[in-house]
Amino acid sequence: MKSDIDRGMKEKGLAAILVRGPAQHNAAMTYFTGLVHLTGGVLLKTIGHAPILFCSDMERDEAASTGLDTRVLSEYEPMKLFEAAEGDLNLADAMLLENILREYDVKGRVSIYGQGEAGATYSTYSMLAARYPEVEIVGESMLKSVLTQVRATKDENEIERIREMGKITTAVVADVVGFLTSHQAKDNLLVDRNGDALTIGDVKKKINLWLAMRGAENPNGSIFAIGRDAGVPHSSGTDEDPIPLGETIIFDIYPCEAGGGYFHDFTRTWCLGHASDEVLALYQDVLDVYETIFEAIEPDVPTREYQLMTCALFEEKGHPTICSDPRTLDGYVHSLGHSLGLSIHEAPFFRHSAMNQAVLVPGTVFTIEPGLYYPDRGMGVRIEDTVLMRSDGKLETLVDFPKDLLIKIPGA
Amino acid sequence: MKSDIDRGMKEKGLAAILVRGPAQHNAAMTYFTGLVHLTGGVLLKTIGHAPILFCSDMERDEAASTGLDTRVLSEYEPMKLFEAAEGDLNLADAMLLENILREYDVKGRVSIYGQGEAGATYSTYSMLAARYPEVEIVGESMLKSVLTQVRATKDENEIERIREMGKITTAVVADVVGFLTSHQAKDNLLVDRNGDALTIGDVKKKINLWLAMRGAENPNGSIFAIGRDAGVPHSSGTDEDPIPLGETIIFDIYPCEAGGGYFHDFTRTWCLGHASDEVLALYQDVLDVYETIFEAIEPDVPTREYQLMTCALFEEKGHPTICSDPRTLDGYVHSLGHSLGLSIHEAPFFRHSAMNQAVLVPGTVFTIEPGLYYPDRGMGVRIEDTVLMRSDGKLETLVDFPKDLLIKIPGA
Repeated sequence: MKSDIDRGMKEKGLAAILVRGPAQHNAAMTYFTGLVHLTGGVLLKTIGHAPILFCSDMERDEAASTGLDTRVLSEYEPMKLFEAAEGDLNLADAMLLENILREYDVKGRVSIYGQGEAGATYSTYSMLAARYPEVEIVGESMLKSVLTQVRATKDENEIERIREMGKITTAVVADVVGFLTSHQAKDNLLVDRNGDALTIGDVKKKINLWLAMRGAENPNGSIFAIGRDAGVPHSSGTDEDPIPLGETIIFDIYPCEAGGGYFHDFTRTWCLGHASDEVLALYQDVLDVYETIFEAIEPDVPTREYQLMTCALFEEKGHPTICSDPRTLDGYVHSLGHSLGLSIHEAPFFRHSAMNQAVLVPGTVFTIEPGLYYPDRGMGVRIEDTVLMRSDGKLETLVDFPKDLLIKIPGA
Repeated sequence: MKSDIDRGMKEKGLAAILVRGPAQHNAAMTYFTGLVHLTGGVLLKTIGHAPILFCSDMERDEAASTGLDTRVLSEYEPMKLFEAAEGDLNLADAMLLENILREYDVKGRVSIYGQGEAGATYSTYSMLAARYPEVEIVGESMLKSVLTQVRATKDENEIERIREMGKITTAVVADVVGFLTSHQAKDNLLVDRNGDALTIGDVKKKINLWLAMRGAENPNGSIFAIGRDAGVPHSSGTDEDPIPLGETIIFDIYPCEAGGGYFHDFTRTWCLGHASDEVLALYQDVLDVYETIFEAIEPDVPTREYQLMTCALFEEKGHPTICSDPRTLDGYVHSLGHSLGLSIHEAPFFRHSAMNQAVLVPGTVFTIEPGLYYPDRGMGVRIEDTVLMRSDGKLETLVDFPKDLLIKIPGA
């Protein structure tokens, strides 16, 4: 967690961390600033010192509300830098960063963070490295960077915020169940009182609305995929499609706090009205694996072991998996889960590669999401909860929600 | 516009454009793919050829829905690359990109695009440059890159989407007026029927809800800033604050199509119930300058001329400006506007620096947003519309909305 930053920087031999970009939808910056309306800025964290936030004059009050030490960028005369750079904004940025680093006498390894355009990032930091050879610009590996590692362990406040997003998420899921069951069956499709078919687009609009009502944001949309679409893990569903009974529906919802804050991630698979024996069996296989893995996970064991265990469990049940065939499109085709926080996908991950040495420790918040996919049979099943590894090493589902496959529909 | 890409690439001596990242909230990728649920991918555009989209197996249907030529990344055996890179994901990415570029025999200058983490971007492309010296990785200057220039001119479809977002935006602004005027005045504050004070947070929740109802997303929040907060251009307003009568309210709203599409940008300044002569005069100065500038703007004139003209107009009226004092916090303290599209801030911009050679051409969609700010006097005024430079060189306000300062409040 955040209090581990200095130790982490020391271990990696870093003199400083430099974060750039807005404070919204930019996890590395938001991690320091909280959710404030900063459209851009620079944050410098030198080892052993509190971070300093450099911001535009126009955003000085927003910056001050973070409680961080702040400076205004106008002190560095950005217009003069732009002139000196002959209108090359990347060079002007490199000069600005050089001036800041020199002023704070930063020397040695500087690890860079923040979402930005690839061209500007590459060009600006290449020029900075050339202009100020006393620093080494370090692009740490995404899986192992100091902020990745620090962020992987959540403090109490972060856990409660992810749980709160979970309460909002499951409240909306319950709303969706209520919305679906307020319809009825006709010719094996869900229809309204006028007999008009409900579409996936109708459902998705409601999801966005109900999330907004509860103060959440849905920057990446939701997956509401039926039949063959459910058989392809990230197919998000086709807005114009009607909603048939008896087919698998994968509903995967992953909103965040409004303004780009903490995420939650949650999936249920449903059949409306009825389910075939084939689907029931598929569902039971996924549920069995979910429960077995949930019980098995312990601290300090490489995550890859659980991906291998998941593959083994599914193969025992007769399903192909990516562990034995990396290119299979049938069976278990993705990894077991991922951590989450200010980003929807964070380390540690669950790759089965021997090169993945990640482990779960108390304070990690991550998803468990086994699934089975058979696109040619027009079906897919995934069950996902967001869980916490508690200080006693046990897992806790952050928000409980029933895992029933079948949803009763009037007239079905 | 998009059809100018090959010509632009040729002018800049580029063999290829390489775009990485998701297709949501990642303008360079969305520009090619449209709004689809791709959490990551690679797009390669070589000069004279149609772009190719490389995606995950899990997202093959989403990728196919773009209409682009697609390939799946599993063909490149990412797990083997991860092993070969000994778990360094940045190196594995560099290897993947190298394999793609070699397969398509790309040599020469390759310009890179896409939102990503700074460390991973810098490290991956540095390694790619070292591994594959036949290409020169180019980080073009943000103001002058080929995609910046191509995107600066909108086609009919893009213009209609920005206009449609404008209709949604102004509908929500009208809803906000209706919401405010459904309240009444008590002790100079806006209160509900029970006499409880309305807060800025209450208004902002409604704004998000009403945007979601109309299919829009609000990734960066809104500015609803009153009094002194209105005197600091990017202060977004304090949720807990009540809403007093007679003070300037700056309401700046800049939503986008759900999923990370086209933006609109719009600001009005209001006084509820009554306004002092001082505020009325300030408002009239801003409105005069808005109207003068709107009439003055022509094609092919450097944007800096209009920033200088705006400063001159405000100085004639006795206000300090950043043209004469770059660090002033009073008066006219920002630039006249910015272009917008898949990003809320796009080139061309209006810096007054002689190094800014940007011009407006037909097809440019941009904001005009003069403002005056006096934080110590507790007031600020900004008026902003999103406008199009039409093919005849005239400006067209994309969506009309009244520019009245005063909003009548029952009982005030």
